[in-house]
Amino acid sequence: MIHIALLGFGVVGSGTAEVLAENRALIEKRLGEEICVKYILDLREFPNHPLGDRVIHDIAPILADPEVRIVAEMMGGSHPAYEFTKSALEAGKSVVTSNKEVVAAFGAELLEIARKHGVFYLFEASVGGGIPIIRPLRDDLAPNEILSISGILNGTTNFILSKMKNEGSDFSEALGQAQKLGYAEANPAADVEGLDAARKIVILAALAFGVLIPPSAISVEGITRVTAEQTAVAEAMGCALKLIGHTERIGDRVLALVAPHLVPASSPIHHVDGVFNGILVNANMLGKTFFYGAGAGKLPTASAVVADVLNAAQGTPHLPRWTAATPERIADPADRVCRRAFVFRGCGRCAEATKTYFGNDSYLLRDGSFALISRPMSGREADAAVKACGKELCWSMPVLD
Amino acid sequence: MIHIALLGFGVVGSGTAEVLAENRALIEKRLGEEICVKYILDLREFPNHPLGDRVIHDIAPILADPEVRIVAEMMGGSHPAYEFTKSALEAGKSVVTSNKEVVAAFGAELLEIARKHGVFYLFEASVGGGIPIIRPLRDDLAPNEILSISGILNGTTNFILSKMKNEGSDFSEALGQAQKLGYAEANPAADVEGLDAARKIVILAALAFGVLIPPSAISVEGITRVTAEQTAVAEAMGCALKLIGHTERIGDRVLALVAPHLVPASSPIHHVDGVFNGILVNANMLGKTFFYGAGAGKLPTASAVVADVLNAAQGTPHLPRWTAATPERIADPADRVCRRAFVFRGCGRCAEATKTYFGNDSYLLRDGSFALISRPMSGREADAAVKACGKELCWSMPVLD
Repeated sequence: MIHIALLGFGVVGSGTAEVLAENRALIEKRLGEEICVKYILDLREFPNHPLGDRVIHDIAPILADPEVRIVAEMMGGSHPAYEFTKSALEAGKSVVTSNKEVVAAFGAELLEIARKHGVFYLFEASVGGGIPIIRPLRDDLAPNEILSISGILNGTTNFILSKMKNEGSDFSEALGQAQKLGYAEANPAADVEGLDAARKIVILAALAFGVLIPPSAISVEGITRVTAEQTAVAEAMGCALKLIGHTERIGDRVLALVAPHLVPASSPIHHVDGVFNGILVNANMLGKTFFYGAGAGKLPTASAVVADVLNAAQGTPHLPRWTAATPERIADPADRVCRRAFVFRGCGRCAEATKTYFGNDSYLLRDGSFALISRPMSGREADAAVKACGKELCWSMPVLD
Repeated sequence: MIHIALLGFGVVGSGTAEVLAENRALIEKRLGEEICVKYILDLREFPNHPLGDRVIHDIAPILADPEVRIVAEMMGGSHPAYEFTKSALEAGKSVVTSNKEVVAAFGAELLEIARKHGVFYLFEASVGGGIPIIRPLRDDLAPNEILSISGILNGTTNFILSKMKNEGSDFSEALGQAQKLGYAEANPAADVEGLDAARKIVILAALAFGVLIPPSAISVEGITRVTAEQTAVAEAMGCALKLIGHTERIGDRVLALVAPHLVPASSPIHHVDGVFNGILVNANMLGKTFFYGAGAGKLPTASAVVADVLNAAQGTPHLPRWTAATPERIADPADRVCRRAFVFRGCGRCAEATKTYFGNDSYLLRDGSFALISRPMSGREADAAVKACGKELCWSMPVLD
């Protein structure tokens, strides 16, 4: 019998109890042992829940109980989740978590503490909800140098962008619909301003490159300024406008960013619609591999938490080493080389002249402005080309290849 | 230092040596030890290869060498690959393999032998080339009951079908082009008649349901009878015509089959073009998760082999238990309930009459025949409905949802 404690009994915490109950027989069969929820830590009482008698309001009994080998932290927020995680690891308990905020801010330190105590610190549920991505990156892609990771990491914003595309609506209208349907929170800032995706991309960057960058130190642009016109132009260019978290290595530095991108139909990310997530990994031996599924939601996320519990119950910890990023390890987004979409105000003759500067033909849009997708160029080169061509830039956006 | 032996030095075997050499530094860093290829077993000599001096022609020294902890079998074919694998496991060595033929035929027995000797038998490279699917199914989806797995498991046939769709060509024409480009072998039977996909789907079925069905015992239809007209009708219906390996549980029985399907645009499988593979897993907690990437090729497949080597070098074996299927565990394909596409010869009036039998509207095709996609129905119900409606059936095909 493996005794575990759940920290937090909100959506993911209660979902974890549900997965354990619903699939009890098969989990026991696969693990060879039963998993028993011995404690649930929450500020609230749950008198009508079958596990209501396990609810406590103080972490101390959990830390003091040698029977508890695994703690699943699903509280959300940095504090006291970070302190509880640290205490549990120091008490020799493995910790699994869905809390991307804690992993993104304190992952390097917590992995080190876990290593010192010979226990696990696992966080499959922190990125992509239930989509297997953390363990495949660590295990299946272990023989590879990761070249880049790009993905749709936030279902709320993807739902809003899908709505805008399908209905030609603007951002605030689509946000309102998402809120009505429960896909966006009353205060949607963390989603629509890109912070949620930023936390996830720094975790993926750390897995790929061993360097954990604070989310506050990366370039983050959300979708609040995306217009119906941009969505339409994207479509006219054969692309979908998506909010992308992207990381790659540039020399010795690691680039991580969140920004709206145009995604051509040839990319599997183009076809990710609604609340789903999709993550594309480019590796030096494997090439491009794509992972797609429910990026959030009670049971999918809980499934990932329970998978980590099973992993912690069975295996020997082989934890990655992450270094907290110093400023000189963080790449300047202006150094990123990629194709870029440009929309200029102007006429057909102007359009032709831009070929010199952007390396590709452009075409007229219905409102008389013209659009092009450039050759791969850095942000600096792009700025110089815009200046040199002398046309009035309406907007520009990176293209994800 | 971990000493390994490579059995077979063809495409995947030499690719494995290449992955180990190319990414030597990062593999050593991740594993904490160096991996050294001590023996290469092959009938041929490779005097000009840097590892040419490791080549031997007899398995005995490998089996007798206690330093060799891991054997990577990449010979292809059932014999002597099966016998060599068995001997290596019995000699206490872990075996990793890309050989789907051996896993599909002897996997249950070999897993049992591995378990008895406390070693690994791993086969990530046997399905989906480099795409992580076996380990995610086993580890990340462990808390889930698998409901179904459906996928494009053969890149050659998907390349041919993509060609047929994009160029309106017929099967033999597209096959010729695939052969010219090296995507299809001179003798393409195992690919185009569905046997390769059949081996892969029985492996996935065993992982999902614990029952290993001989590929010869499942219903297998390849793409040799797919016509340009069917491809066009599929497109008119908003679908792509794809060769699908599919498995699900029907009561106590396991259904596994390979057949052309119509795949609607809402499915991520619809968008898998060219030589790529894509596998959709439907699980009771996680919902639908999709894995996509290079389903074959030297380095992607070798990457999966090396990932298994790393796994075998580090971990504790937790191997699945597979039962060899008895006839009463194998489901009848006619019991499968799914939507189905039908094309009938006839007129608009006939079309209307079929609604009673198939539960959905149909529409006229340009040649005067009419097409419909039915409500979900079993093969038996479908046969009865076709008979009852009294129209002349041109062809019908399952729809993958």
